[in-house]
This record gives sequence, structure tokens and C-alpha cells, in this order.
Amino acid sequence: MALKLVIIGGGSSYTPEIIEGIIKRHQHFPVKEIVLVDIEEGEEKVRITSELAKRMIKHADVPIELSYTKDRAKALKHADFVTVQIRVGGLKARALDERIPLSHGLIGQETNGAGGIFKALRTIPVMLDIARDIKEICPEAWLINFTNPAGIVTEALLKHGAHQKVIGVCNIPYNMKNSIAEIFDVNVNRVMIEFAGLNHFVFGQKVWIDGVDRTEETIDHLLNDTIDYSPSNIAMLPWNRQFLRSLRMLPNPYHQYYYQYEDVLAKDIEAYKNKGTRAEAVMEVEKQLFEKYKDADIHEKPKELEERGGAYYSESACSLMNSLYHHSMDIQTVNTLNKGSIPDLPHDAVIEVNSVITKSGPIPLTVGKLPDSISGAVISMKKFEQLVIEAAVTGDDNMLYSAMIMNPLISSDHKAQSVMNEMLEAHKRYLPQFFEEANVHDETK
Amino acid sequence: MALKLVIIGGGSSYTPEIIEGIIKRHQHFPVKEIVLVDIEEGEEKVRITSELAKRMIKHADVPIELSYTKDRAKALKHADFVTVQIRVGGLKARALDERIPLSHGLIGQETNGAGGIFKALRTIPVMLDIARDIKEICPEAWLINFTNPAGIVTEALLKHGAHQKVIGVCNIPYNMKNSIAEIFDVNVNRVMIEFAGLNHFVFGQKVWIDGVDRTEETIDHLLNDTIDYSPSNIAMLPWNRQFLRSLRMLPNPYHQYYYQYEDVLAKDIEAYKNKGTRAEAVMEVEKQLFEKYKDADIHEKPKELEERGGAYYSESACSLMNSLYHHSMDIQTVNTLNKGSIPDLPHDAVIEVNSVITKSGPIPLTVGKLPDSISGAVISMKKFEQLVIEAAVTGDDNMLYSAMIMNPLISSDHKAQSVMNEMLEAHKRYLPQFFEEANVHDETK
Amino acid sequence: MALKLVIIGGGSSYTPEIIEGIIKRHQHFPVKEIVLVDIEEGEEKVRITSELAKRMIKHADVPIELSYTKDRAKALKHADFVTVQIRVGGLKARALDERIPLSHGLIGQETNGAGGIFKALRTIPVMLDIARDIKEICPEAWLINFTNPAGIVTEALLKHGAHQKVIGVCNIPYNMKNSIAEIFDVNVNRVMIEFAGLNHFVFGQKVWIDGVDRTEETIDHLLNDTIDYSPSNIAMLPWNRQFLRSLRMLPNPYHQYYYQYEDVLAKDIEAYKNKGTRAEAVMEVEKQLFEKYKDADIHEKPKELEERGGAYYSESACSLMNSLYHHSMDIQTVNTLNKGSIPDLPHDAVIEVNSVITKSGPIPLTVGKLPDSISGAVISMKKFEQLVIEAAVTGDDNMLYSAMIMNPLISSDHKAQSVMNEMLEAHKRYLPQFFEEANVHDETK
Amino acid sequence: MALKLVIIGGGSSYTPEIIEGIIKRHQHFPVKEIVLVDIEEGEEKVRITSELAKRMIKHADVPIELSYTKDRAKALKHADFVTVQIRVGGLKARALDERIPLSHGLIGQETNGAGGIFKALRTIPVMLDIARDIKEICPEAWLINFTNPAGIVTEALLKHGAHQKVIGVCNIPYNMKNSIAEIFDVNVNRVMIEFAGLNHFVFGQKVWIDGVDRTEETIDHLLNDTIDYSPSNIAMLPWNRQFLRSLRMLPNPYHQYYYQYEDVLAKDIEAYKNKGTRAEAVMEVEKQLFEKYKDADIHEKPKELEERGGAYYSESACSLMNSLYHHSMDIQTVNTLNKGSIPDLPHDAVIEVNSVITKSGPIPLTVGKLPDSISGAVISMKKFEQLVIEAAVTGDDNMLYSAMIMNPLISSDHKAQSVMNEMLEAHKRYLPQFFEEANVHDETK
Repeated sequence: MALKLVIIGGGSSYTPEIIEGIIKRHQHFPVKEIVLVDIEEGEEKVRITSELAKRMIKHADVPIELSYTKDRAKALKHADFVTVQIRVGGLKARALDERIPLSHGLIGQETNGAGGIFKALRTIPVMLDIARDIKEICPEAWLINFTNPAGIVTEALLKHGAHQKVIGVCNIPYNMKNSIAEIFDVNVNRVMIEFAGLNHFVFGQKVWIDGVDRTEETIDHLLNDTIDYSPSNIAMLPWNRQFLRSLRMLPNPYHQYYYQYEDVLAKDIEAYKNKGTRAEAVMEVEKQLFEKYKDADIHEKPKELEERGGAYYSESACSLMNSLYHHSMDIQTVNTLNKGSIPDLPHDAVIEVNSVITKSGPIPLTVGKLPDSISGAVISMKKFEQLVIEAAVTGDDNMLYSAMIMNPLISSDHKAQSVMNEMLEAHKRYLPQFFEEANVHDETK
Repeated sequence: MALKLVIIGGGSSYTPEIIEGIIKRHQHFPVKEIVLVDIEEGEEKVRITSELAKRMIKHADVPIELSYTKDRAKALKHADFVTVQIRVGGLKARALDERIPLSHGLIGQETNGAGGIFKALRTIPVMLDIARDIKEICPEAWLINFTNPAGIVTEALLKHGAHQKVIGVCNIPYNMKNSIAEIFDVNVNRVMIEFAGLNHFVFGQKVWIDGVDRTEETIDHLLNDTIDYSPSNIAMLPWNRQFLRSLRMLPNPYHQYYYQYEDVLAKDIEAYKNKGTRAEAVMEVEKQLFEKYKDADIHEKPKELEERGGAYYSESACSLMNSLYHHSMDIQTVNTLNKGSIPDLPHDAVIEVNSVITKSGPIPLTVGKLPDSISGAVISMKKFEQLVIEAAVTGDDNMLYSAMIMNPLISSDHKAQSVMNEMLEAHKRYLPQFFEEANVHDETK
Repeated sequence: MALKLVIIGGGSSYTPEIIEGIIKRHQHFPVKEIVLVDIEEGEEKVRITSELAKRMIKHADVPIELSYTKDRAKALKHADFVTVQIRVGGLKARALDERIPLSHGLIGQETNGAGGIFKALRTIPVMLDIARDIKEICPEAWLINFTNPAGIVTEALLKHGAHQKVIGVCNIPYNMKNSIAEIFDVNVNRVMIEFAGLNHFVFGQKVWIDGVDRTEETIDHLLNDTIDYSPSNIAMLPWNRQFLRSLRMLPNPYHQYYYQYEDVLAKDIEAYKNKGTRAEAVMEVEKQLFEKYKDADIHEKPKELEERGGAYYSESACSLMNSLYHHSMDIQTVNTLNKGSIPDLPHDAVIEVNSVITKSGPIPLTVGKLPDSISGAVISMKKFEQLVIEAAVTGDDNMLYSAMIMNPLISSDHKAQSVMNEMLEAHKRYLPQFFEEANVHDETK
Repeated sequence: MALKLVIIGGGSSYTPEIIEGIIKRHQHFPVKEIVLVDIEEGEEKVRITSELAKRMIKHADVPIELSYTKDRAKALKHADFVTVQIRVGGLKARALDERIPLSHGLIGQETNGAGGIFKALRTIPVMLDIARDIKEICPEAWLINFTNPAGIVTEALLKHGAHQKVIGVCNIPYNMKNSIAEIFDVNVNRVMIEFAGLNHFVFGQKVWIDGVDRTEETIDHLLNDTIDYSPSNIAMLPWNRQFLRSLRMLPNPYHQYYYQYEDVLAKDIEAYKNKGTRAEAVMEVEKQLFEKYKDADIHEKPKELEERGGAYYSESACSLMNSLYHHSMDIQTVNTLNKGSIPDLPHDAVIEVNSVITKSGPIPLTVGKLPDSISGAVISMKKFEQLVIEAAVTGDDNMLYSAMIMNPLISSDHKAQSVMNEMLEAHKRYLPQFFEEANVHDETK
């Protein structure tokens, strides 16, 4: 059987990674056609990534046809898998997501706090459009979402979308497993972490090597060594020792926004005032990456791509598509419906969870009740996410305000309102649901 | 039938209010004997309050015998009701609860944040001792607790105490009803508020006047007028209008610590640096009150007592005891076991809830699921409270740290540890469970 | 204020009881207008009951206007309270509900088993029609339902009906309280029973006299004496002693259908074969009652009415309407939404529960988790009820079959089908939802 | 690594099957030592099975040492796996479990109804003894239980046992998969059934072939063909067509006791009166089997063994042990803790569920909420099971009575008592917890 893959947001700088993943698996995962899709604003970028991708395919000598288009509907015809990696509003919008909160003395970050909320508000309507198209044009296709905030976006799709064959992926679980593998000096396939929680708010509850529980040793490692398992977009501060001792679980890199709030805020405000926020650094990285991508002598994914925070996102996606296709019944960590896996959370909540990957989709493994030390925070975060989704779908500003005031990174009733108002205005073009306009666009990461 | 009332912490400046409540109800609530109990350090104060109380009784010409003692066990013999209003470590300990967090840039308050945690840690072991005595000496007596943090202390008693006839009271619900009565210009008995949540974290979900739902009008009042329904120990800042519009419920005065965090913190740090914290103001108020109490010409509760934040505490307690005695089946707002009233919370959690008062104790009315805008915060707060209780009972510092880091008023892993360590040291004498010593004492408020 | 009461099914033989209740309360519950409503088939009966009612009013010399009509919409204008006591298909349909199951060797009873299912299927569509009318014509009116199966019908109204001001009443809780009052020789107002469960499947979990727990003594009474607290339509067999000893709760009379299945079945089959079923006995009783009602010398509710099983139904309804009107805040046992009162059951399930009666409706008291010995049966019964409701609303015969097979009184897959088919056919005229016809009628009890 | 396997109840006629399973897997599952354990009464049988087993091993030419002993403690030294297949009271007790209920007109069956209850009461104390020994002597060993009622016994072990490495197995899920494989004419490894429920009360909710949902087709097959997927100990009656149409799931063979109650009862009473119950048939089969086993020319598992109902029990056990040893991460259907997999059931309930088999034990896959048509029955059955366990552990006859009256196969309060009393007396020797004696013995199946 010949498979067709559609990459929405094909002009993303991550595209070479996914192409590499497809090439690498070619023998067993028979993709014969890849179409990169992007919008007007991303056309130059998608032209560049498609040229590079073609060189990679040619160099690898594999029988894959690759093209790019702005016509999403046309691209979707006969698709088997659709990956989505869009950034509505582009890096400029991300810069606003970071700068506006910081200017009010709040954390300004792409997927957490006020920035994460507005990224979700811009993204969800576009994703629902894409889901509608897929349902109509290629209803058997799997939609693999790695657009952030991946957990919120995936839940929005599963709750409000036309298409139910949707799975969210994130590179954090993979990165954490990789770090554990390094600690124990074993191959990553021998590592299993029981994840408990939500995308970007997930804890590593148990660590097994070859099925043997090694959690205590792992925590001791974290207590004694300086192990950095954060992706490159998050410079991890060292954890307080009592924090780890009392937690007895692995925090993920994004937890520092919550549990090291003041230190991170101070550092980010410093950066914002002096050298610029992460969006601005990424713009620079991307500029250089695309320069590289243009180089006709390059036939492989440039090593520099790993400096972007999203490394392994595409690896996770390719591995997932492969298992779906082959009904591999292996265990992967995905964003999917809870279904009781964590009984503290609603059944229809999307969680980040180890799941058996079957041809009919992921079946989550049971995690069980969350420990007392984290359950309040995780439950509360999920309630927040659900208010964000409702606000994104309804355009109700009271609901949005409720979401803002519930977020632990926004601590004041007045500030919540001023930041909300300023961000609604700044992103107006991409938030028709709040302004009753209708010119939303999806753009590449 | 002749009733006996024992007031533990009888040297508290609030004692005249409860004496007034008993005198007022004398015809129908036949208390014939009152014993004030206090410890060594409180002897002078209890001597003064007992003298005043005797003058009040004589002036009212009611047949009540009143005495005071340091011998708790003797006092408890044949008791029908035991009220507890102690302050372990006295106002000096309160000052530390306020000053240490503030010195680290955190909210320092008696019942919330780090201060509230340590007040609970000091109080719970003493309360469990009292409960043991009651169970042994007067097992039919009701223990009415108004020692703060009242919700946490009551849950600790019900979970770990020997005696199960325990009810917690707070003046906040009564104050809120009073304010609503003023808004609508009706007698307070015609007002019913459906409370939803926990002591000091309770929301007024519905407002009825004579059984008719007037919630929307009440919110509109709050949006348009400046209505202050906070007790005198909390200077209430005006609420943000969108906060109230999105909430559509009544916040309680303590909510400002959470939803107006930065403003309150700034104000409190200012006070801490210049004029002193609330504990120091209270010391001054108490000094003047006790001067007054000594005045042999005073035969009634001095008006100045109302300046203390706890006004109506004793009123609530007297009203509750009266209904328990008479099996009145009226509805009062108390701290008692959830039993499913709020299904989001555990059945054995103590909540602040409207309850039918029977001779066999309070039966909570169902509240139903919490609204999305608050459920995360309330669930999370209860989980925090339960960790505090476990830490108080076990003396486990990892559990204590978990409680600290979960508290929304303590936002940093490192700060949590330094504040924790400093407070453990400062209150060492009253925290034998953490230091394996055994010299805990109860003192008056 | 002058109140208007509409009695749907006014030709019911119970009407004199409700008239008596209204007359008795006249001083404080100012009903000025009563309209009896009935359908074509019930005209003769409603003419007789209205004549008797007029004589009763005249005799009592109270200023109430009473009339009867077949025009429901007209009657509902300006109504404050609407009671509904209909019997769709009349006693003839009841006889089929009893005879068909019995002919297959199954329990044939009006509100339980196959008979109860079919009574619900016939009644629910008519009740939804009535609710629609009320919502449109007198949206402020309370609908007080005593049509059986009262719990199922009330839940159907609250889940699928246009009108939400609906409360279900049953005489069983009142009867049980009466029997307890007799045991302890006290006034019934001093008795409170904590009911736990569903209409006709409710247990008396706690018994209080004047607020003091007397449950154990009550059980001992039941163990030692022969106390019959069943209504006259159910001849109660003696309970097995170990049954009561292990239960430590009060069963209700209908429980014998489940826990004394074989004995009851044997007795009922005997009756069915020889002297006729209950429906036939009731036809005889009714005939005599109406003879009596016609007697122009009768000005009061005839004593013989108490021989019908429904005695006190109207008493419960009058007492409830009075408390709703006066916002009495007293506690009555009604069928209303669970809201967490029994956490084992869904929040939107209707349960039979002690509730505070306010002007805005009943607020259930918390009951707490059901004991292990009954929780499975109660949960299962509620699931069954919900399938019956879904079947009644959708006309889906697979759903109906699922309900039948789940019912503990129907123990065989084949029999379930043959009884179902026979009853669908027998009641075809009243089950348009299963046959896509539309000629449903409401008739009097 | 060399593994040691201990088979408790080694004199069971099933032993040759497990020996065959070990021999077959020898290359990859390196068992080097097998010890058969049995009690005094089983000595002759275990001598015979051990002789046959030795011949089988020799014939297969594999390096396994096999012995038998009555000294359980000695056998357990260094054990890696312990399988338990005991029958407390032997087939004589089984005959009583069948005959006493049947003599009262109730279903008499080994694992359901009154018979199943008493088998559990006899077995649980012995199993708890075994678990204590394992915890002390070989704490790293896995206890694989196939003693019936397997779900109840496994839950008793996990709730009250000293040893937590316990997994229950049953052959029914395997048999059902086998039948599906036959229907679709595919290898059984390509079949996956989502099981939902409890041991002997499990439903096949979804059927996948190669990961593709084929549930509807499977139901259609069952509707149209006569497919018998029952084990040989249960002669399956044809299902009613509407039963399957409304269920849309696969019932298991034991469901006929509940949903075809009358027909099965009639058939069993007929057998009981004429040709004897299943126990008596099994005695005959066993007699012949052991004759065969003695035959020194037999070196393989005799084909006749498959006529016993437990075929594939040992296959399931061997397959499970192999996956535990190799950390295979494959999916097997076992009896293990729910952990939220079926949110309708308690977390600490044992359910029959697809689980990923790791070296640290099974991790259940999420099943999700049960369909309305079965949830009541399954919840109720689990409550029943839990009462049986409590009764077995406490010896409380009120709890036992509660369990009996809850069981859908025992429909009368009086009959429950007389059957209970008669069975308590009949099995007195094996029920010391109810009689305060202490001479319990484990015997072979």
C-alpha cells in the first residue's frame, strides 16, 4: 500500500526533520507522496523547505514524490496522514505573547500563562477548520497535531472538531526518556516512564528500565547530579533539593514556570529588557536555518535544527504514524482522551499518557489516582485549559477572564484585565470570535 | 435541664461576647454553669475576663455560676458544650507568622499562606489533646471550634480526633449575610446565601431573600456600589469589575489574598516596614480592651470589642449551641463533613456549608458541582489543607514542603524552603512533632 | 394573595382527599380557585367528584370556587399549582400490566417489573405534553406529580420536559413515618427518617425521634413485633429476621417484590388465577366509592377512601404546596434531583430524599454513600429507570428490551422478549412512540 | 537464569497441561526446577501427576528437575513463580455447592450463586496462608492464581494478603478469542477483544482483527450462526436474538446463569434429579483421567483432558509467566486491580481486563465507562463480590447473608437463610472463620 502524507504548515523550519523521519523508515512505512501545505505569508519558506526536502529524498534515493501547495483542500485528497505544525500569526504574534505579559510583570511564554492562552485562542478556530476539511475530504486520515499548546489544541479538536481521528504529540516525554537513558547508560527503548498529567504539565511518576522500577535511583541522580533534560528552548534552573525530595517524581522543564516562578520571571524580564525574548532569538535562528536550507549542497537535515526547541517532535510523529499504520501495539506517549486513566480528571479531558498504539488509535494505559502533592495543581490546570477552549470557541470574554484569573502565572484581578484587553487588541486580526470578524489565517511555525 | 458550658481559651478578649450571647438567650437556653479555662501564661487575662463576666451576669440578674480554672480536666466534668478559642503561642507567634513570610516577600497572614500553615501546625496537636479529654470526660458534649484556621482544624479533629461531636464556626458567612441584608434593607433572617467552598475560601453562590433568588441583583449591587462586607481585620480593596462579572458569585474578603495578590502584598509589606503587622495592631487593641475590662464600672461587653476582626464569632457559636440543644432544624452555615454536598470534594473533607441543625448534629444541604470558574481553585485548596493536616499530625517535613509549594501564595521552590526552615525554627517550641519534643501548650487568643 | 390550583386527573377517586387538604389549610394557604381537569373518558367521574367537592366546600363554608373542564389549556391560565394524578389507559390498562406478566409467571404489578415499565411508557409522553402546556401558559406554577411510577415520571419530566418546576410525591415515606410514630407513641412531627434510595425502592436508613437516633430500637421492634407499615394496596409478608438483622435499615413495602420474590409471586399468581388481580379489586372499590360520592348527603371525604392504597398522597401534596408557598424551610421527603446527596447516583437522577422546602423549590439534604448491602441494588435500579425513560422518549425497542432484561423481576432473555412483545401489542394505542402513531390520552386514576 | 516453578495443588488433573506449556516454551522460558505441592488427601494424585510429568519431561528431553512434596514452605524456597490451583474440600465439597442450592430450587454452580459464594469462603483463608508463606519465603515470586472464583480470590489476596505480586487468570477470555478467530478464520494472535467486566461476568465490548473494529460483524455472526464459545463445562443455550441486538456486545458463557436463569435452572434441576450434577460428572472424568495418567506408556498430555472445563487455563498461565519474565509488553487479559480502567468500579476492585504485561506486573488498559445496558449489573456484581470477601475474612454471618441476598441467583429472603444455614453446616470443617475452629486444608482440584 502506498501512503500519502500531508504536512500543514510545511514551511516550518522543522519540516526537514519530518522528511528525515519518513526517509529513515521508508522500507517499512511506505509513504509515496508528501504534500507540504502553507498559506500565502509562508510561501517563500515552504518553497525553500520543499526544495531541501526534494534534495534529501533524491540523495536518499527513495521513491517519494514531494510537492507543495497553498490549496489545502486539493492536498488533502486521498491523504492517509496529516500532520499540523502551524503558527497562527507567525513569530511576530509569538513575540507579542511574550512581550505584553512581561511588560506587565508577568511570565510571557509561548505555551504557558497569558501567552499560551492567546496562542490557543488564535490556533483553535484554524484547527477546527482543518478538521472540517479532513472529515470531508479524507475522513480515514489521522490528524497528528504538534501545534502548541498541543494538549489544549488536541482537546479542542476532540471536543469541538468534526474529525475524531486526532492525536497530539510533544517532544518533552521523548526528551525525558532520552535523559533517563543517558543517566542509566542504556538504549532509550529500554526506558519507560509512567507519565502523569497534561502536556507541558506532566510528571514522570515512575521510571522503569527493562520493566524494573528505578524511580528512586532516578530521583537520587537528580538530587545529586546536575542533569538537564530540558529542550533547548528552555534553560533549566536547578531544582530545589527539598522540592525533589518531597515530590519523588520527575518534573518536566516547563514546571519551572510554576515552581520557580520568581526566578524565571526575573530572568525573563531581564532578557526582555536587554537581549529580547525567545521569539526574537528564534527569528534569528530561523533566518540562519533558512539560509542553510537554501544551500543547494545541503542534502540532509542540518545539525543546527536541533538548537530549536522542538527537536524530536517530528521523530515522535513519525514513530506514531508508523505504529498506527502497522498496528504495532507498542507504547508511546501521546495526547489523547483520558477515558479514566487518571480518575481525578474528566473522562473527556486530553492528557499526556502512555498508550498502546493500535490501528484504531491509542488506548491509554491506566495511571491511577494522582499523588496528593500534585493532584490539586493538575486538576486545576485542566479546568483552566477547558475554560480556554470554551473561550476560544465562544469568544466569550468573561470566560476568557475566568481562564486568565485561574492561571497560576497571572496573580491579580486588575492585571488579568489589563493584559487581557491589551492582548485582545494586539491579536485582534486573529481573534475574529471575539470581534465578529472572519479573517483568520494559519501560518507556519 | 441545666446546661454547663466550658470555654477553653477563656482569657480571650472575645469572652465577653460569648457571655453576652448566653445571657441574651437565657430564657430558652438554660446554661447554669460556665467555666473559663486557660493556661499558665493566660492566667492574668482569664482572671480579668472572668471578673467582667461575673459583673455582666450579675448586672443581667441571671442565675449562672461562673468560675475559671487552669485544670481543664476538672472543668470538663459534666460539660454539655465546649467552645475552643485558643491561640497556641499567643500573639507573639502570630507576629512571627506575619513577619517571616513578609520578610521574604510573601503574604504573611494569620490564616492564609505560610502563616496559616504554621498556625495550623501549632494548633492541631493541642486540639487533638482537648478532643481526647472531652471523649474521656464528657463524651456527650459538643465541641464548638472557632480556633483558626477553623476549617483545617475542624477537619483535623474529625479525621484524627478521638471525639466526633465537633463543629467549626466562622463569622464570615454571618457577616456576608448581614451585608446582603443591608443591601436589600431587610432583616438578616430573611437572607439565605448558598455558600460553596471552604472556610476563608467560600463563595456566595446564590442569594435568596425570602426564598426568591436575588443573586443577579446582588452582583449588580457589588458592581455598582462600594459595599464592604469584610470584617474589621481585613481592609477590603475594591474588586475588579470584570472579576465580578465573570464570577457571578460573591467572593469573601479573604479571596483578595488570592485574586488581588500583588496589591495586598504591596500594602502589607508597606505596613510591615512602617507601622507593623496586624498582630502588633491587635496587641495594642487587646491592651486597651483589657484595660477597659478591668474597669469595675463596666457591666456589659464593651463596644470596642467589635474592632477586633472576630465579631459575631461568638454570636454564631451561641446560635449554633441553641439549635443543637433545641433540635431546631433551622439552617446555619457551619464547618462540617462534606458527605457529597459538593461532589467535587472528598466526602470526608470539611467544608463551609448550610446545614440543618438537629440534636444529632448538622446535616449539610446539597450544593452541587462547583462552577468551572472556581472548582479548580477550591479543589486545589482542599488538597493543600489535607497536606497541612497530614504534616501537622506526622511531623513530616516533606509533606509540609509539599503543602507549602502547593499554596498559591508561595510561588517558589527555594523560597518555600527558606521560609519553612525559618518558621520551623522560630516556632520550634510549639512544633514538637517536627522536633520530637513534647512541650506543647494552648494559649488564649 | 389568592391562589389557583389545577388538578389534572380530577376525576380520580382521590380528589376528595386533596379537597379536604385544601379546606383544612384554608386559613393559611389561600386557595381561591380549584379547577378539576379530565379527559372525555373521565367525564362522568369528574362530574361526580366535582359535585362532591362543591358540597365539601360549601359544608366547610370556605370561599373557594370550584369547577371542572376538559379544556386543559384554559384551566391552566393563572395557575399557581398543578397537581397531576392521571392513569393513561385507565384501570383496564392496569389490569393488563398485572395480568400479562403473571400469565408468563412473572410479577405483575402496577409500578414494579414489566407492569411498571409499561405504565411509565404510556405516562411519560402525556406528562411531557402537560409540562409543555404549563411552561407556555403558567410558567411560574409548580407541577406536583403523584402519577406513578412517580420517581421515573419525575425524572423524565426533569430531563426531557419543558418545565423545570416539578416535584414528585409519594405516600410511602409519610406512611413509614406514621408507623414509626405509632411504635414510639409520639406525634408524627417528632419523627424524622433519613430516606436513602428511589421512589418505591427507598430504605429508611436512620430514624430520629426529636433529633435523637433511635434506629437500632426501631429495627429491634421490627424484629420482635409484627408491624405493618405498608399501604393498603400491598399486603406485607413478614420479613425474614436475618434479612432485617443484616440490613439494619427499614425496607419499604415494595421491597418485598425483590427480596421475597418467590413468595409474592406465588401469592399473586394464586390471586390472578382465582379472585383476580389488584386492578380488578380496585375497580370494585372505585365503583362503590363513586356510588358513595354521588350521595348528596355526603359532605366530607368518605372514610372508605382510605382502603385505596394511595391514602396520604394528597396530604403529602398539600403539605408540600403549603411550604412552597410560605417558604417554610421545613423538611419534607420528595422526589427531586440528587445533586450529590447520594454520591453513588448521578447528579441528575431523581431520588426520594429529605429536602428543605423553599420558595425556590426543594434543596436535598446530603445522605452520603449508600451502605454496601444496598448500593448495588439501588444503583442498578436507577440505571434501569434511566433506560425506561430513554425507551419512553425514543420508542427504541432495543432500549426497552435492555430495561426489561435489567429488571430483577424479569429473569429470562426469552421471557423478556415475549412479555415485551405482548405488552407492546396490548397497549399499542397508548404507545405511539413505538408505533409512530399519535393518539395518546391521559385518563384518570 | 534458571527459574523455579512451584505448583500448589500439583495433584490436580490439570497439571499435565501446565507441564506441557513449560516444556513447549523451554527454549525461551528457562524453568529448571518444578515442585508439585499437595496436601495429605491429595498425595496419591500428586504422585501420579508427578510421575506422568517426569515422563513428559524425559520424553521431551529438556533439562528440568521435577519433584513433589507436602512441605509447602520447603518447596517455596527460591521460587520465581507459584501457580495455585487448589480446591478446598475437593470435589465432594463442589458436589455440595451444587446440590444444596438445587435442592432449594436455586442455581447450584461452582463459581456463581450460593455455590460460588461458599467456594470463595472456603478458599480465601487458605490462599491468604499461601500468600503469607510466599511473602516470607520467596517475596520476589509471582503468585499466579487460577483457583476459582478467580476474580474474588484474586481481589481477596490483593486486599487482605501479605503478598502483592498476585495475578489472576481465567480461560474464558482466551476461549472467546479463539472462537472469534474461528469465525473470521484468522490466527488467534490477530484477534483482540476489549473485555469489560469481571471474571465470569465479563463482556466482549469491542472486537478487533488486526486493529480494525469488527464488533458489528461479530454480533451479526452470533445472531445468524450458532457459535458456541463456551468451555466444555458449560453447555451453552442459544441466546435470544433481541438480547444480542440490544446488547451489541459479546456475553460470556457464564452470563446464561443470569440472563437465561429459568431455562438453566430447569435443566440443572433435571440433571440433579436424574444423572447427577457437574461435580459428579467431573469425578467420573477425573477417575478415567488418572487411570490414563498412570499408564507408563503415556508421555504426553492426554487428549481427554480437554473435556474438563478448564482447558487453556494453564496455557494462559504459562503465557503470562513468560511475558512477566521477559518484560514482553504484550497485552494479555488478566484479573488485576482496576486502577480507573473502568471508572464505574472502585480503583481497588479486581477486574478482568486487557493489560500490558511488564516485568513489574500488568498495567491495565483503559476501558472507559460501561454501557448503560450492563453497568448496573456489573457494579452490583462487584459489590456482591466485595461482601463475599469481607464475609470470608471476618466470618460475619450478617455480611454473608447480605452477600447472598444481593446475588441475583438467590431471590428470596427466607431461602437465602435456609440455604446459607445448610451450607455453613455442610462445609463447617472448611469454614473455621464462622465457627472459630482452625482446621482448614487446601486440596487439589
